[in-house]
Amino acid sequence: MDTHALRELQNKLGYDFRDESLLETALTHSSYTRERNRHVRCNERLEFLGDAFFDAIIGEELYRSFPDEEEGFLSRIRATIVCEKSLAMKAEAFDLGAYLLLGKGEEKTGGRTKVSILADAMEALMGAIYLDGGFEAVKTAVLRIFEDVLQDARKGIYIITDYKTALQEIVQRNGNVDIKYELVGETGPDHNKTFNVALYINDVLQAEGTGKSIKQAEQHAAEEALKRRQDVI
Amino acid sequence: MDTHALRELQNKLGYDFRDESLLETALTHSSYTRERNRHVRCNERLEFLGDAFFDAIIGEELYRSFPDEEEGFLSRIRATIVCEKSLAMKAEAFDLGAYLLLGKGEEKTGGRTKVSILADAMEALMGAIYLDGGFEAVKTAVLRIFEDVLQDARKGIYIITDYKTALQEIVQRNGNVDIKYELVGETGPDHNKTFNVALYINDVLQAEGTGKSIKQAEQHAAEEALKRRQDVI
Repeated sequence: MDTHALRELQNKLGYDFRDESLLETALTHSSYTRERNRHVRCNERLEFLGDAFFDAIIGEELYRSFPDEEEGFLSRIRATIVCEKSLAMKAEAFDLGAYLLLGKGEEKTGGRTKVSILADAMEALMGAIYLDGGFEAVKTAVLRIFEDVLQDARKGIYIITDYKTALQEIVQRNGNVDIKYELVGETGPDHNKTFNVALYINDVLQAEGTGKSIKQAEQHAAEEALKRRQDVI
Repeated sequence: MDTHALRELQNKLGYDFRDESLLETALTHSSYTRERNRHVRCNERLEFLGDAFFDAIIGEELYRSFPDEEEGFLSRIRATIVCEKSLAMKAEAFDLGAYLLLGKGEEKTGGRTKVSILADAMEALMGAIYLDGGFEAVKTAVLRIFEDVLQDARKGIYIITDYKTALQEIVQRNGNVDIKYELVGETGPDHNKTFNVALYINDVLQAEGTGKSIKQAEQHAAEEALKRRQDVI
């Protein structure tokens, strides 16, 4: 691989490899090895390794950041950070796709911007840094790269996939409150109904939501209620 | 907690805590905290932490032990080690149950021997060692405690839950072979059938298996075939 590119990427990562072959392996997608039939390693084994360290490092950080939260809360926040989407966002931020070794087929179908390929390569990089520099090295790199995401998490801002659960956790932090969803309307024909749901916290209306199912309407109402709170986006 | 007991357990673990309160927390089950309503922490947060480090440490060890195996293989072997059953076995080996702080209800219903409680406490211990002594300390402890399990894994002996997959992986290590399962008999009435399956590798009969479903019969045949091989138990 191009020495200049490898140097550039290491600068972006904030980590200098003693053994650059580890970095190269981390950048090698399986499509490249398969297609060229060469005796080079692809990054899947490094991804296996890096994945677990990523989990542990983010886990520790959340453990320390939220001394009063329970395990279930920590797991859910971690899942928003340790996920393809969040890994791929970081990969895009330093244009990781441009440095990957891909097979021609994968290249043609836009492999350099595929979320799964980018996320896997990010984890492989973590595995490579661990092997090259040890635990403290990969911890430093991960915390630096995910600094803003962790900052946001500390403020209660994270990628939410389940708004109802998130709302419940946030409003119940300061004790038990009563959250109620009420179906307030249905419109449209039977095969294509739209539902309207109102969300009450301690009997005070917070928001409404609409959706093609009651469940979806409830999620939208919870999302809306979260947006209206100052402590979350 | 009894200082003598804490000392004894640390000897068994092969790790001396600087901060013994971390050890105490690791031994405190949620039933204890809930019931006594005291302001002590239970071990769930430490379990969250330890779980990920356990994964990473075993992952690295397998990564190094099997330099030629792919990620899928490593994941499956790891799953046989990083599981409740294996954790609880280790916990039993040093009588961890005896050191736990449990609520009275849990005590009465045999909590000290419950697989899930023992496994969780093992992971919590790992989290506690990490916080107390850092990554190298927990790595040393885990590798020492799981030494025999890892030894066995290196020899191809591991707790198998899916015999068909295991057989396939083992016999295909040295290139592609043809594994075939053939239904050779059905006995009993429709609502209570027993199936007999024969297993062939490259058209040579290896073993037979019976079961209440074809799938189960195949699993039994694969298990039998594995037992007949010298490289696996």
